[in-house]
Amino acid sequence: MQLALLDKIIQNSLEEDIGWGDLTTESTIPKDKQAQAKLIAKQEGVLCGIAVFARVMQTVDASTQVILLKQEGQHVNCGDVLATLSGRAAAILMAERVALNLLQRMSGIATQTAQLVAMVSGTKAAITDTRKTTPGLRMLEKYAVRMGGGRNHRFNLSDGVLIKDNHIRAAGGITQAVLAAKAYVPHLIKIEVETENLAQVQEALDALADVIMLDNMDIPMMAQAVALINGRALVEASGNMGEKDLRAVAQTGVDIISIGAITHTIKAMDISLRFEA
Amino acid sequence: MQLALLDKIIQNSLEEDIGWGDLTTESTIPKDKQAQAKLIAKQEGVLCGIAVFARVMQTVDASTQVILLKQEGQHVNCGDVLATLSGRAAAILMAERVALNLLQRMSGIATQTAQLVAMVSGTKAAITDTRKTTPGLRMLEKYAVRMGGGRNHRFNLSDGVLIKDNHIRAAGGITQAVLAAKAYVPHLIKIEVETENLAQVQEALDALADVIMLDNMDIPMMAQAVALINGRALVEASGNMGEKDLRAVAQTGVDIISIGAITHTIKAMDISLRFEA
Amino acid sequence: MQLALLDKIIQNSLEEDIGWGDLTTESTIPKDKQAQAKLIAKQEGVLCGIAVFARVMQTVDASTQVILLKQEGQHVNCGDVLATLSGRAAAILMAERVALNLLQRMSGIATQTAQLVAMVSGTKAAITDTRKTTPGLRMLEKYAVRMGGGRNHRFNLSDGVLIKDNHIRAAGGITQAVLAAKAYVPHLIKIEVETENLAQVQEALDALADVIMLDNMDIPMMAQAVALINGRALVEASGNMGEKDLRAVAQTGVDIISIGAITHTIKAMDISLRFEA
Amino acid sequence: MQLALLDKIIQNSLEEDIGWGDLTTESTIPKDKQAQAKLIAKQEGVLCGIAVFARVMQTVDASTQVILLKQEGQHVNCGDVLATLSGRAAAILMAERVALNLLQRMSGIATQTAQLVAMVSGTKAAITDTRKTTPGLRMLEKYAVRMGGGRNHRFNLSDGVLIKDNHIRAAGGITQAVLAAKAYVPHLIKIEVETENLAQVQEALDALADVIMLDNMDIPMMAQAVALINGRALVEASGNMGEKDLRAVAQTGVDIISIGAITHTIKAMDISLRFEA
Amino acid sequence: MQLALLDKIIQNSLEEDIGWGDLTTESTIPKDKQAQAKLIAKQEGVLCGIAVFARVMQTVDASTQVILLKQEGQHVNCGDVLATLSGRAAAILMAERVALNLLQRMSGIATQTAQLVAMVSGTKAAITDTRKTTPGLRMLEKYAVRMGGGRNHRFNLSDGVLIKDNHIRAAGGITQAVLAAKAYVPHLIKIEVETENLAQVQEALDALADVIMLDNMDIPMMAQAVALINGRALVEASGNMGEKDLRAVAQTGVDIISIGAITHTIKAMDISLRFEA
Amino acid sequence: MQLALLDKIIQNSLEEDIGWGDLTTESTIPKDKQAQAKLIAKQEGVLCGIAVFARVMQTVDASTQVILLKQEGQHVNCGDVLATLSGRAAAILMAERVALNLLQRMSGIATQTAQLVAMVSGTKAAITDTRKTTPGLRMLEKYAVRMGGGRNHRFNLSDGVLIKDNHIRAAGGITQAVLAAKAYVPHLIKIEVETENLAQVQEALDALADVIMLDNMDIPMMAQAVALINGRALVEASGNMGEKDLRAVAQTGVDIISIGAITHTIKAMDISLRFEA
Repeated sequence: MQLALLDKIIQNSLEEDIGWGDLTTESTIPKDKQAQAKLIAKQEGVLCGIAVFARVMQTVDASTQVILLKQEGQHVNCGDVLATLSGRAAAILMAERVALNLLQRMSGIATQTAQLVAMVSGTKAAITDTRKTTPGLRMLEKYAVRMGGGRNHRFNLSDGVLIKDNHIRAAGGITQAVLAAKAYVPHLIKIEVETENLAQVQEALDALADVIMLDNMDIPMMAQAVALINGRALVEASGNMGEKDLRAVAQTGVDIISIGAITHTIKAMDISLRFEA
Repeated sequence: MQLALLDKIIQNSLEEDIGWGDLTTESTIPKDKQAQAKLIAKQEGVLCGIAVFARVMQTVDASTQVILLKQEGQHVNCGDVLATLSGRAAAILMAERVALNLLQRMSGIATQTAQLVAMVSGTKAAITDTRKTTPGLRMLEKYAVRMGGGRNHRFNLSDGVLIKDNHIRAAGGITQAVLAAKAYVPHLIKIEVETENLAQVQEALDALADVIMLDNMDIPMMAQAVALINGRALVEASGNMGEKDLRAVAQTGVDIISIGAITHTIKAMDISLRFEA
Repeated sequence: MQLALLDKIIQNSLEEDIGWGDLTTESTIPKDKQAQAKLIAKQEGVLCGIAVFARVMQTVDASTQVILLKQEGQHVNCGDVLATLSGRAAAILMAERVALNLLQRMSGIATQTAQLVAMVSGTKAAITDTRKTTPGLRMLEKYAVRMGGGRNHRFNLSDGVLIKDNHIRAAGGITQAVLAAKAYVPHLIKIEVETENLAQVQEALDALADVIMLDNMDIPMMAQAVALINGRALVEASGNMGEKDLRAVAQTGVDIISIGAITHTIKAMDISLRFEA
Repeated sequence: MQLALLDKIIQNSLEEDIGWGDLTTESTIPKDKQAQAKLIAKQEGVLCGIAVFARVMQTVDASTQVILLKQEGQHVNCGDVLATLSGRAAAILMAERVALNLLQRMSGIATQTAQLVAMVSGTKAAITDTRKTTPGLRMLEKYAVRMGGGRNHRFNLSDGVLIKDNHIRAAGGITQAVLAAKAYVPHLIKIEVETENLAQVQEALDALADVIMLDNMDIPMMAQAVALINGRALVEASGNMGEKDLRAVAQTGVDIISIGAITHTIKAMDISLRFEA
Repeated sequence: MQLALLDKIIQNSLEEDIGWGDLTTESTIPKDKQAQAKLIAKQEGVLCGIAVFARVMQTVDASTQVILLKQEGQHVNCGDVLATLSGRAAAILMAERVALNLLQRMSGIATQTAQLVAMVSGTKAAITDTRKTTPGLRMLEKYAVRMGGGRNHRFNLSDGVLIKDNHIRAAGGITQAVLAAKAYVPHLIKIEVETENLAQVQEALDALADVIMLDNMDIPMMAQAVALINGRALVEASGNMGEKDLRAVAQTGVDIISIGAITHTIKAMDISLRFEA
Repeated sequence: MQLALLDKIIQNSLEEDIGWGDLTTESTIPKDKQAQAKLIAKQEGVLCGIAVFARVMQTVDASTQVILLKQEGQHVNCGDVLATLSGRAAAILMAERVALNLLQRMSGIATQTAQLVAMVSGTKAAITDTRKTTPGLRMLEKYAVRMGGGRNHRFNLSDGVLIKDNHIRAAGGITQAVLAAKAYVPHLIKIEVETENLAQVQEALDALADVIMLDNMDIPMMAQAVALINGRALVEASGNMGEKDLRAVAQTGVDIISIGAITHTIKAMDISLRFEA
């Protein structure tokens, strides 16, 4: 993770949430009043973003102390104390919402990822994200996918080639598109081709694509494609597949199953901050 | 909505997604090749963010034309064509993911809001959001709530006072906290107090709070609180209420029901861009 | 106050004033030469911005020490030592102008506010600012008004509703405008209506406006308006009123007197930094 | 003037003033309703910032038309129509406050400068500003001084050398300080030395300073200094001189009189925007 | 190329070069005076950055017209007219230096690249850049390498894996390092390993590295390495190789020769702007 | 140097080079593994930017320790250890490339400048840079010129006046242009005029230009110009002069020789970072 980008996200989020000052806190809480608080899981899940939470707190006031009791990526249970905080009450209250909003979303994504990964356990399929992430938070969301046991697909349009329908048509065919891409991109970037049927799979294979995506194929066709490819390229299954099909897809022998919903449909994990009386 | 903030979100999102260039498109698609495309709803819901979608497209290339066929806030069905696009294929492809990511999330929030609003129809209760929004996207998410028929709670810490447990304790009581806030804040800002029992409700009333939040009360206690307040303050129901209780809560006579899940648990609406052959 | 915004103001101001380096200091003063200095009031007034002054100093060099001898909002006399500084001479000299420019303006505003507040002492009228602040420095100027004993009007267009002539005409009347605003804005935002005569006051009252502004009325009409409103709404007097009328306006019983000149006509307080030989 | 810097000032000011949206306008005025308005001087003075005013309007909505009827730097009278506007009412209202805040301050500075310049007419003395400008607005304020007939002192610490007391002491004397600066700075930058008595003036002359500042000298001593210098260096008079002394100072034969109050004590010119019924 | 990043570079460069205004032009050239100019090559080379040149011109003034007479990547001769310009003289003069500084550097890099590429013509070796680019200008410099006929190495630390000495030691060996990287990175990213001898080459091969870098090997050892690898991985030659060895290196059969000097040692191409009398 | 600008350059460069994370380091090196390293000169030259190098390291991780063994501006030999580093291996590796890229360029410029300065030793000519610097890095490059013993020409268009051909023609002659500039610019800014023949030199002298540039004159004409000027103005020689002519130019008696190649043709100094086993 790049900390400079993280700090920009944090600054931006704090400005959004604090506006020109916390009217309630400024008017009711003496500036130097101290407080202790506990960060508590209100449901079970995979903890993710605890260091981000602490960094938000310390951005608002560098003297706020955050002691982590659970680790990034750890499975936690309802009621677990994740961290303890001490510092100025006003500073903790001003940072609270942004810190929790990030922590809860990241933990929600890690938790959901872990569930999907569990569904395909024992197969060789890896679960990956897509570019369907929340604008502005991609670095954090892809990190959460890794913490949940998933893998990342390309981060953006410049660190991977994914040749889709439109590219194929404009280039005049899969072969031409793959050749054009190979001639253009840095040698550390792989070429993936999206295919919709076995003829396209064969063409992509012949063009020496590094990765072949099976897009919206049914499970029997996927299995045929995997057999056809036979290890000569990585195979990615893609499409709006429901959770009930996930294991069957994995069992076709694909290497990768990419799931947009990992990041486009988010259920924040319930975590709360309790001040001590 | 402030367009300068929207443009910052769009710029930031495009930089995140495009990196130093779209390797696939640059290598396979002639720079000036033209394309037409249709934006199509893949499920029913409330459309929201269509102008944002168009603005992303035109940020990447001002010459891309987007003709809107459905309006902001309109209920759309699966298969409806929402807009048609024409312009450089490369520009549309580079903008596509960011434009869809924003549109799908905003429409998802508007759709979910409309469902919640429908559940309380016929009561006087308004459904509102909270500050549990996605960091960086609050303006868009609160806009989506309005498009779905909901209302907004305060935007940030500087445009409303919400006195919670910690503020009350630090100030020495509800009365003192309300007085301190009234003496401090601009006269166009109202004072809301969070209460957990009827004694607190009475104290907030006596302190002339403008709004009283009933936090995590059961439905009978809410009804008692509404009766006690009797129109002398606005009443907000809050707490992790399930959808099944929503109508019962509304029927107690509260004015406002705030629901964090409207923005912290997001299901993107399925919308896709189809290029014409 | 939001520190992140303050830091942006400070950074921006330092870049403006330092350019690509302080040619004079760099060429004549050894980099590590130490210095002591005193910050001295050259006229009496209300001190404001002393923490901002210190933060500018420490932004240029975190090792510069600033010991505050007078407090924010305190009345100080000509000759009073406000703070003592010690640190690298070069750093103090590079920070001096920006630190003083902010401090002198903020103290000037606080001083002028205190004079206006004193003129209405014994009445219930509060003196408030307007949005006629210096672009870029609103947060600091509104803070200075508070330090001088004044109150703040809305911070910007999104944290208060003020329905003026144009809004009334476009909406089709005061009643329609108030209704439209009530249906739209967050429930913690109050609605204020600008009126020019008693008929408009009555209409605003009937529409249940929270605050009624009496715009450019003469004093007898103001008194009639106050009597008519009779506590059912807050009353704000506005208009280019000279200082000589201020007390008479306050004695009509208005709650608020807003004065644009508090921030649009600024007389910097004379404060200087004296280096010790 | 650099337009990129101007645009940053405008963006920043609009974000400050609009927040997350103009609640009043959004709720009461149909988005596409058209309006005409006139910009009217409410007092006489020197117009400055009219192009900035127009640029603010067009930043909010590029389709707003502003027809200028008076020119930058022109003397205008109370009641003069400075410009006419037509466009979307909502856009004009959202831009109004920032546009006026800048225009009124700039015109106020130009007006005050013109008065000071008039006081020394017939002498060779030029009136200049100092670095006591409003943080963030220096470019605009120094421009306003020029429009009022004044001249600019250095813009910042990197485009001029002004050797003061502290530099002299640290360098070991005026001679050493001037030599050190000459050896360091770009050859297009002149060296100015601040002096407090005739001995220092002589030393600065001997060191071949380009400009000699007479700091807080009384008028007879200034006259002696001018005679001593006798055209071998430019002469600047400085110090908190009241307006009543200004002409006498000019008549001593100094080349430049720098006045901090030109920009640290600002009286905004009264200009208003009138919408047509 | 990402235009948003390009525009940031241009803005930043113009602010750096223009400061608070072009004193010379503002004082001597009437604002609306028109001019024509020609952009002329003063030496032969490969043209690169002509569109960037035009964009700088149009950033300063959108009405400046630039007609391109030579194309990006084209070989041009001394005396060739590359483009003609017409527009406001003041605008062209303010943009000139930044526009030329970028164009000359980019053309210099493209020209030098083309010379290196020519030296290995007929072999299969591609010439690539490294990350030794000018901070802030990497996107433009890597683009210039492509225009000169070279290829790009990874853009930054997140779009390629290059396992060096330190990584190998920390991971406990090449095998462990490659495995760790493969388990971590997106599936579209390849793994390259830096090797210094044939044993390391063998270990990298066995670990199934995608690319093997031969670092500072002499030519016979390179040839042995190429034979050993035998097409099972891409082979990159690296090290401070002089131009005289370049062809010999290429003839060993390596796929890639990376050359830091392409971007760390820059000779701007001589191009000038001639105004027409 | 202004540290705020330096920090922006560093942040920007790190974001460019690190992207969304260092895949190699993150996957192979334990986060807290410590390392020591030495910074070693691989060729002789003038060291410049060592404090910048250290600041990059500490921006990535404030706990990285850098002990400087050689000083800014010092002549160093091949093999000299310039600094020692200790800290987290991962942090040092992530910062390494940016830190070296800046250090190597700055030292390259200082080294080249020192060579040019040596060529004119014994004459009174100073070697200066021009505005042909790398966009975004001007402050660092002009600093490097000073460290190499050179002098700086103006930093940008707002801190010096240089009247060229186009300005002269637009103003109607050298005399008019100089007068216009003198009437406009701050009194601490000097006026330089570019001349191409002796008649222009005479006209510039008569107009009391502060500095006269001899542009592309041959050496005899330069000598005549110097004689003509005879100390009444500073004299700058300019033009694409080869190194072989440099001393002859200096011997004509000019005060300043400006050389664009100092910053537009850069040869990075070879410096490397060696990790200890």
